[in-house]
Order: sequence, then structure tokens, then C-alpha cells
Amino acid sequence: MSHNKIDRLIYTFSKLPGIGRRNAKRIVLHIINNKDRLMAPMAEALFDASEAIQKCKICNNIDESEICSICTSEKRDKKTVCVVESIIDLWALENANFYQGLYHVLGGTLSSSENKGPADLGIDTLSDRIEKNEIKELIIATNATMEGQTTAFFITEKFRDKNIKITRFAHGIPIGGELDYLDEVTISTAFGSRQNF
Amino acid sequence: MSHNKIDRLIYTFSKLPGIGRRNAKRIVLHIINNKDRLMAPMAEALFDASEAIQKCKICNNIDESEICSICTSEKRDKKTVCVVESIIDLWALENANFYQGLYHVLGGTLSSSENKGPADLGIDTLSDRIEKNEIKELIIATNATMEGQTTAFFITEKFRDKNIKITRFAHGIPIGGELDYLDEVTISTAFGSRQNF
Repeated sequence: MSHNKIDRLIYTFSKLPGIGRRNAKRIVLHIINNKDRLMAPMAEALFDASEAIQKCKICNNIDESEICSICTSEKRDKKTVCVVESIIDLWALENANFYQGLYHVLGGTLSSSENKGPADLGIDTLSDRIEKNEIKELIIATNATMEGQTTAFFITEKFRDKNIKITRFAHGIPIGGELDYLDEVTISTAFGSRQNF
Repeated sequence: MSHNKIDRLIYTFSKLPGIGRRNAKRIVLHIINNKDRLMAPMAEALFDASEAIQKCKICNNIDESEICSICTSEKRDKKTVCVVESIIDLWALENANFYQGLYHVLGGTLSSSENKGPADLGIDTLSDRIEKNEIKELIIATNATMEGQTTAFFITEKFRDKNIKITRFAHGIPIGGELDYLDEVTISTAFGSRQNF
């Protein structure tokens, strides 16, 4: 294959998460075969988004304005902040459609290997927010991984002496989950936190 | 999520083959997080390709010129044509880097459900090519599926009375394949075509 532009497209797609070279080839061919319907519209969607999308100055969410639609919404409870690792997690919570508070997107976890410290996760900005806006509850919703839990622990320690409720999601058996398919730690945690019928 | 441009991007990506909505979200977020490195370059690659890429007038391959680099190459054997279903298959053969002849890309298989007839697969153009260029061998490399084999059979019948050798790839156990993981038809075909050591 000496088609430089096709190769460049395949290479670009193959670098996206979850897409390997083989899949990238199929995708690029699909796009080329549906040139009018897909190629230009996709390029436009990318250009448009590239110009419009910004990081929210308050919570690090992404949106088409300086302050995101969650932070500006009058319907949201301004006294509760849920701390998530990534916008993917924020989307998952918004999708579940029950949470009414605000967010703080860390953009990662504390990590010595990736050289990420508290400043990179905007912990100081969060601290300012808590004081200025008199936040009442901080819900730590970092992932239940080693890094996520370390970060959760760090944040909890950091804000321990502020007059603020700090909570985290309950651990246990997922709804619909079968014991046989769950790991030992989840099972023993769920057992330890068992509740009365 | 009321971010129209982000949603539009996610939607566009979720419609690509092999990418669902969840994956599309991750991909779009990855692109947004690497805006400078990915977003504009990707849009440009798409625009560029959209303008440059054409279907080869001889073999239906795609390239940046009216006649593709395989058809114009002086190193290729102009008397042999390999018939493949799709450009993906052509790429797979080129990748294996042993075939020196030309191609004819059908762009699908004969299919009553998709309403594809011989004209859609360019069988007439192939017929013209065979006569004009005095093709000596036609290698039918359609996939070993029901549709692929039906199409292969149709083409073989069609060109039976032309003075031309028509061959197909050997069926059998793939190199590195384990009997236990192969289907019964492959095993019995390989048995039937067994060769002397």
C-alpha cells in the first residue's frame, strides 16, 4: 500500500483507544465507501467540536461554554460536589439520571508513575470551591481501583478538618450480579457490609 | 448531556463498524483530551482523503489517482487477475506480499437480500478486461462463505467458455491451526484434499 492519504487515515484511527490496525482498516474503508455520508460530515464534526469545546473553569467538565451547563444549571444542588476521576464517569452518573449536585473532575488519579500530584488533579481549586460556596457534602466517586482508592483516601484526609460531610459510594454485589462471577474481595466486602432484610 | 457538538461526535463515531456507543464515548473523550494532537489533524486527514481518494477505473481498488498504483505498476504480471470481494481482502493479499498479478474488486457478493446482481459487481467490466488484455489466469479469491462461494461459482460458470485458466485458493487447515478448534467442514475438506508427504 503506497496510498499515503489512506495510510495516514488508517494510522490516525489505529491510535484511538480500543481500535487496532485491523479495525482501523475496516473503519477507514467503511468511511471511504460512504464518502458523502460520512467523510466530510465527520471532518466537519471534528472541526466544529475542536473550536467549540472547552474545559469548564469550575469543575473541569467539557462543554461549549466557559462554565458548563451543570455548573450553571439552577436546578442543581450547589452544596453537594461529587468527585470523579474522568468525564466518562461524570457521563455515567448523568446517564443514570438521579444525581442532582455538582461535580469536580480530577482528570486522573494520584500516580507516582505518571507523575501526577494533587495540583494536577485540581485539589486546591476544589478546596477553594468548598470554602467559597459553602459545600456541605463531598461525595468521592473515584473508581474502586488501587489508584482510585488512594486518591479517595488522600482527598478525605485533606478535607478532614473542614466542616464538611465526606461520603463514598457503597461497595457490594452489583444489581443482577452473580456471586460465582464476582471476585473474592467484592464478596467479602458485601458480606462485611450486610444489612437487615 | 446537552452538549450538542460532543453528542454529534459521539454519534458519528458510534456508527462506525465495531464501535458501540460506550466505545465512541471513550474515543471522543480521548480525542478531546488530545485536542491539538488529534482533533484538527484527524479532521484534516479526513478532508484530504475525501478529496483525493478515487476508485480505480480498471479494478475498483481505491487510490489517489484514476488508475491505481497496482494497475499502473510495471512490475506486476498483467496477465493474471485475482478476484476479491472487498478492498480489505486486496489489502490482506498485498500485505502477505507474494502476489504479483492484478486485481478485480467485486465490492460485495451476489445477494438476493441486498439486491446485488452481476452488474453491481462489475462482472461485465471484468469480462471486457479478460478479452482486451488477454488475461491468462483468473484466481477467484472470494471468501469461503456461502455468498462468497456462490459468487465464485457464478463467475466460474460465466467465463467457462473463454480460453482462460480459472483457479481458486486451496481449502484446508490454516498454518498453526489446531484440529480441535476447527469446524467439521474444514477438517473433512482438508482430509479429502490430503497430499503425499
